[in-house]
Parts: sequence; C-alpha cells; structure tokens
Amino acid sequence: PKDIGDADFANYFCTYGYLYHQKDMLEDQNRMTAYSDAVRLNPESFRDKVVLDVGTGSGVLAMWAAQAGAKKVYAVEATHMAVQARKIVAANGLSDVVEVIQGSMEEVVLPEKVDVIISEWMGYFLLRESMFDSVMKARDKWMKPGGAMFPSRAKMYLAAIKSNKSGMKYQELQESMNVWDQFVADTNENYGIDLSCMTGEFEEEQREHYLNTAAWSDVHPSQLMSRPITVAEFDLNKATMDDIEQLRNVDFKMKLFPQRTGAPGESRVGAFCGWFDVTFAGSPENPCENPVVLTTEPDANGATHWGQQSFHMWPEVHASDGEIISGTLDMVRRQENQRLYNVRMNWHQEDKDGVVNEQLGRRDVVWQIE
Amino acid sequence: PKDIGDADFANYFCTYGYLYHQKDMLEDQNRMTAYSDAVRLNPESFRDKVVLDVGTGSGVLAMWAAQAGAKKVYAVEATHMAVQARKIVAANGLSDVVEVIQGSMEEVVLPEKVDVIISEWMGYFLLRESMFDSVMKARDKWMKPGGAMFPSRAKMYLAAIKSNKSGMKYQELQESMNVWDQFVADTNENYGIDLSCMTGEFEEEQREHYLNTAAWSDVHPSQLMSRPITVAEFDLNKATMDDIEQLRNVDFKMKLFPQRTGAPGESRVGAFCGWFDVTFAGSPENPCENPVVLTTEPDANGATHWGQQSFHMWPEVHASDGEIISGTLDMVRRQENQRLYNVRMNWHQEDKDGVVNEQLGRRDVVWQIE
Ligand SMILES: Nc1ncnc2c1ncn2[C@@H]1O[C@H](CSCC[C@H](N)C(=O)O)[C@@H](O)[C@H]1O
Ligand SMILES: Nc1ncnc2c1ncn2[C@@H]1O[C@H](CSCC[C@H](N)C(=O)O)[C@@H](O)[C@H]1O
Repeated sequence: PKDIGDADFANYFCTYGYLYHQKDMLEDQNRMTAYSDAVRLNPESFRDKVVLDVGTGSGVLAMWAAQAGAKKVYAVEATHMAVQARKIVAANGLSDVVEVIQGSMEEVVLPEKVDVIISEWMGYFLLRESMFDSVMKARDKWMKPGGAMFPSRAKMYLAAIKSNKSGMKYQELQESMNVWDQFVADTNENYGIDLSCMTGEFEEEQREHYLNTAAWSDVHPSQLMSRPITVAEFDLNKATMDDIEQLRNVDFKMKLFPQRTGAPGESRVGAFCGWFDVTFAGSPENPCENPVVLTTEPDANGATHWGQQSFHMWPEVHASDGEIISGTLDMVRRQENQRLYNVRMNWHQEDKDGVVNEQLGRRDVVWQIE
Repeated sequence: PKDIGDADFANYFCTYGYLYHQKDMLEDQNRMTAYSDAVRLNPESFRDKVVLDVGTGSGVLAMWAAQAGAKKVYAVEATHMAVQARKIVAANGLSDVVEVIQGSMEEVVLPEKVDVIISEWMGYFLLRESMFDSVMKARDKWMKPGGAMFPSRAKMYLAAIKSNKSGMKYQELQESMNVWDQFVADTNENYGIDLSCMTGEFEEEQREHYLNTAAWSDVHPSQLMSRPITVAEFDLNKATMDDIEQLRNVDFKMKLFPQRTGAPGESRVGAFCGWFDVTFAGSPENPCENPVVLTTEPDANGATHWGQQSFHMWPEVHASDGEIISGTLDMVRRQENQRLYNVRMNWHQEDKDGVVNEQLGRRDVVWQIE
C-alpha cells in the first residue's frame, strides 16, 4: 500500500519540496544551534555509528552527523528535495558517508539497522503534522537495541496569559457579521434571494475562524499569568502510538500571578498559551555527555519559527490574584486530516482554598490547530 | 471509479465548502447581474423547462431558474455546501421545484434529461479549475437534443499592456537573491554547511515565483498598449474535450498603440494581459431573445473577482509606435495538477511592414497560472 496518499502529498509534503521553505527552517537560529550542539557536543554518540535521518530535507542533520564522525548516515526524504540534498552532500564532500534515499520512510528499505535516529519532526504545539508517527515506525523497524533517539524527550506546556488579541478577534467577528447582514439585505434587494437563514451557519463558520482557531504567536514572557503546566511528556526512545496519538483528560491547575501592572486585584486572562521543548539526552544505554535542550517557550528575544500557539478565549477570564484556573485538556486528531488536531479545554475557577466558583460556571471550548 | 480524488478534494473543492467563499462570488456584482439578467430577460428559455445547475454552491442560479418558471431544477453540488443550499432553497419557498443533489456531477444520476444547463464554471483566464470538463460531460450525458447551455459561448483575449509591476517583480527577485547570498555565507560560517551549490536552483525557484507566475490584476483600460487579440472562442453547446483541453500554437499579432503619455516614440510593454467573456445566447434551436454578455475585461470601475491575468515580462519590450508584437501562445494543463495551466508565449517584434527585428531576437517564456 502507498503510505503517502495523494491528499497528504498535496497538503503536507508539497511545501517541503521548495528550497524557500527549507531555508525558513535553516534560518531558525534556536533550532539550528540546538541540533548542531546536540551533535557537536556529543561526538561519542556519533563516532563510528550508523545514523538514520528521518526527513532529511536539505540534508543538514545528516551532514552534521557525518562531520561528527558517523560511519554511515542514511538520509531519507519523501519529496523532490532529496535530489537537492544529494547535490548538497556532494558539494560538502560527504557523499562517502551520507546516502540520500528518496522515498517515504514507511516504504524505504535500509541495508542495515542503525545506532542513532536523528530527526526534526516537531510541529506547532509539538504534535501538529503528526510526523513523529513516521519517526516512531522507523525506530521500531530500524533501530538496534539500545540505540538513541535525537531528540530523546519531548514536553508540552500550557500557561495562562494576558492578551489584547482576544478582544480584537471578538471585534473582527462582530464586524464580519455586520458586513454579512448588509450582504443579506443587498442580495435580497438586488437579486430576490433571501440568505438570512444562513446567518447562524455563517456566524459559526466565522467564529471557528476568529475565535476557535489557535493562533501562531510570539508571546512576551511578561504576558505570562501563571507558571507553565506540563501537559504531556514523552520518552521518545519508547513512546508508542497510543501515547502520542491523542491526549485525553489531562488535568491542569494554574495559579494566577499577582497582577504585574495596573490596579492590583483583578487579572484578565485572554488565552491559554501552549509550547514545547525537546531534549537531546541519548538513550539509557548510550546517554549523552552533554544533554541539550531546544525550547520554544515565550522569549523576550523573539520566537522560533514554531512560535507559541495561543488559544484565545472570549469573554476573557476575570480572576483575582492567586485564584486558580482548573480544568482538563484533550488533544485529538481531526477526522478529515490526521495531521491536524482539535484541542478541547474545559475549565472553571477556584479560590485559593480550592473552592469552586460555581457562579462563573464551567467553560468548554474547542480550538483547531491549523 | 471515484471521480473526485482525495487530492482534488483537498485542493480544489475544499474552499467551496465555506459560506465565506460562496459569499465572495455572490458579492461580485458583474457576475451576479449577468447571470441574473441571462435568466430574467429570457423567461421563455426557462418557463416549464427542466434545468440542471452544475455546481450549485449556495443554490443561487437554480433558484433564479425556478423563479423564472422552470418546471424542475436539479441542483448538483459536490461539497457540503449542498446541505446549506437545500436549506436556502426551502427558506425561499422553492423546494417544490429545486432539488438539491449532493455528489460529484460525474457520478450523479438524474431521473430525466434536461432542456437547459446553467453553470458558473469559469476560472482565471477562463480555463483554470478545468470545471468545464464536468459541465461538458453533464451536457453529453443529460441534455436533450437542442437544449441550451447557459452560458453558450466563451472567448479568451490577450493584449499588450504597460505595467510598472514588471520592474518591481524583477527587483524583488534581486533582493531575494541578496538575502540568499547572505544566508549561504551565514550558514557556512555558523554551521559549517556550504549551500552555495543551490544558488542556481534557488534562483530558478524564485524566478518561477516572481516572474514566471501569472498575477491576478485589476488592469486600468489606460494601460492597454494594443487592441485585444482573440486567442480562443468556444461554442459551449458543442465544444469537445479536444477543443478545451489545451490551446496550441495560437498565433497573435499585436499592433502597438501610439504612446498615450510621456515622450512620444517609444512604448514599453511590461506584460501580456489575458481575460475572457461569456455570452448567454441559448442554442440554435432555442435561442435567447435577449442575449447577455459577462465580460472580465479591464474596467476603470474595477475588476470582477476574476480580475485579469497579467503575464509580466522582464526585460520589458521596448517598441516604437505602430510596431507589432508577433508570436504564438500555448496553454497546457500542468502534469501534477490538471486544474492548473502553464501558458507559454513565444514572440518577436516586427516593424509596420511586417519585417522581423532579428536584432532583438525571439523570446520564449512559460508562466504558471496559480
Ligand atoms: N514519512 C516521511 N518520509 C520521508 N520524509 C518525510 C516524512 N515525513 C516528513 N518528511 C520530510 O521531513 C522533513 C521535515 S522538515 C526538517 C528538514 C531537515 N531535517 C532540517 O532539520 O532542516 C521534510 O522535508 C519532509 O518532506
Ligand atoms: N464536478 C462537480 N460536481 C459537483 N459540483 C461541482 C463540480 N465541480 C465544481 N463543483 C461546484 O461548483 C461550484 C462552482 S462556484 C459557483 C457556485 C454557484 N453556482 C454560484 O454561481 O454562485 C462550487 O460550489 C463547486 O464545489
């Protein structure tokens, strides 16, 4: 069976065939420095090892592994970028060690098992794109016992933040509905067709767009209204499809910071903010001497290309210092497209002593990660 | 066999499932007025007739046909918008006449043959989207002899225009290559990887993007540097797949206008500009009393949602008043995506007497219509 469906190729793989897009990733200094350090500061993990790079793109990770002394590197890439990677590898004098193989990881046959799998598979809020599926299958099929995954651990975080975007998004929705009402009146007047029965459906569609879609954001650390909660943690040397396919019923309790600016007392939480980090620590049998962390947390110096994902809420949560936002998170793949996710959060407020504020009620919202 | 492939659904049909996108079309006044007039000014073409609306979207054309007295209207729509169309038809009290059928036209089975097929299938430069394929198949399968197509004729035009966008696009390309050179130097310096071997490939990719992709434009009539040439004309009551699938070796000769502003003598042609019109005239057996034309030509009052497609050239053509741009056009479907086209033009300059200016040579350029 062909693993890459036509639709998947059209939607997902297409952009990776462009140097322009590979360049975007190669320009992300945090990403590049972390992967580069992970290889260079841990030469014993690569020296004389057989390495597999899942989704090699321009070939950059494979070449670093070769420069660090790998005996052999298999660099697998599904798109036409494989052809470019092969040229780049040659131009860097590494063709003896790096073998570029064009094909989807699920179908490729390697001549031997490997000691190390390196891959840059992370999407927005870690899981979007679902590329770790392919990396995991490669691990189970091609990794020698005790081999090491690069990266080897991943964590997902969630925090409450203040954000003036929530109000803006709500206003945009209102504005779009005003335009709709005028459009309905005009269409009736000019063309004798009454579309007013679609007002509810259109509002739902627009609400989905403006309020129920997570937004790429470059959040400033001063926006944080709580410490981050760890919503998931994966040991990538062992994680199974069951672990990563979905998150269900993850409890969180965010204790709100005293308000930092303005009048004390009440804090306004405009969004939940999600991000991730990954750690390069090797495997228990082959640990790294110098573990490296790649984080995508809010950073005053600006975000990585992943940014953070903000889940805006309207109305905002009005809460007092030290109050707690308590809830659960579910993150589930979308039926129409397994590479996209819906995130559902269900929350209420509690006072410092854990007494639920029943008056404010419980909120239950689903956002799409696009 | 399933006619709508997964990729086609993901790429092409997806947007039509949104009211937001249907609304864009319903707000195009030229489009709406033309179709509305075509039905209302020709009631005898619809009274007591059986009508098929191919790709009904919001149901608008089907409802007009019903309002004009059709006995029965089959309104076929592939996307989920069919469900909305059914509600809209009901809210407008037309459910007795209009039957909405969800499915791809290629697969749908109608209970009877039809007198009229109405459809709004036109894409950029008429043919993009290739939706007329479906309309033609519906005609050959479901139309009674002598039945009428709405629209019944289509024409494609090409003219020479002046445009300052050509120089801008060339500058953007240069700028993007400067950024690339810096990026290559940085990547070598910071990460020990030499990407200079990709400079040619990247330039080709960027040239494709900036200069070899036709651009949606709202051209002002004063930009026209020649009268429009008719590059194709289709009798939609009869056209076959062979007629519409591709245009090959279409000759054109554009005699340049005397320059309208600035110093007389030399004209600069920055682009070829393409557009189309369609005519609603019925069939020979059932002609319309009041034929109606929908044109997308350059208009000082602003463009329809189709705009015009501009095929920018760099360097520009420097030509003298009355000189002729002479060439051929090919328009061929893209292999990876049959709904998109490549347009290839091959041209040279001639003087007023038809003598070829061999010094300026012949130009041969391919543009994508995206
Ligand atoms: N199942 C699969 N098989 C092969 N390649 C895949 C794949 N899933 C994703 N990819 C490829 O993996 C790459 C991920 S982007 C990372 C590129 C490169 N390793 C770098 O770090 O710069 C893309 O080029 C994509 O086309
Ligand atoms: N083969 C096919 N079968 C059924 N519907 C199709 C189709 N090809 C395109 N369509 C539908 O045709 C519509 C074209 S847009 C025009 C919509 C509407 N008739 C109007 O004039 O406003 C889209 O909604 C698209 O989903």
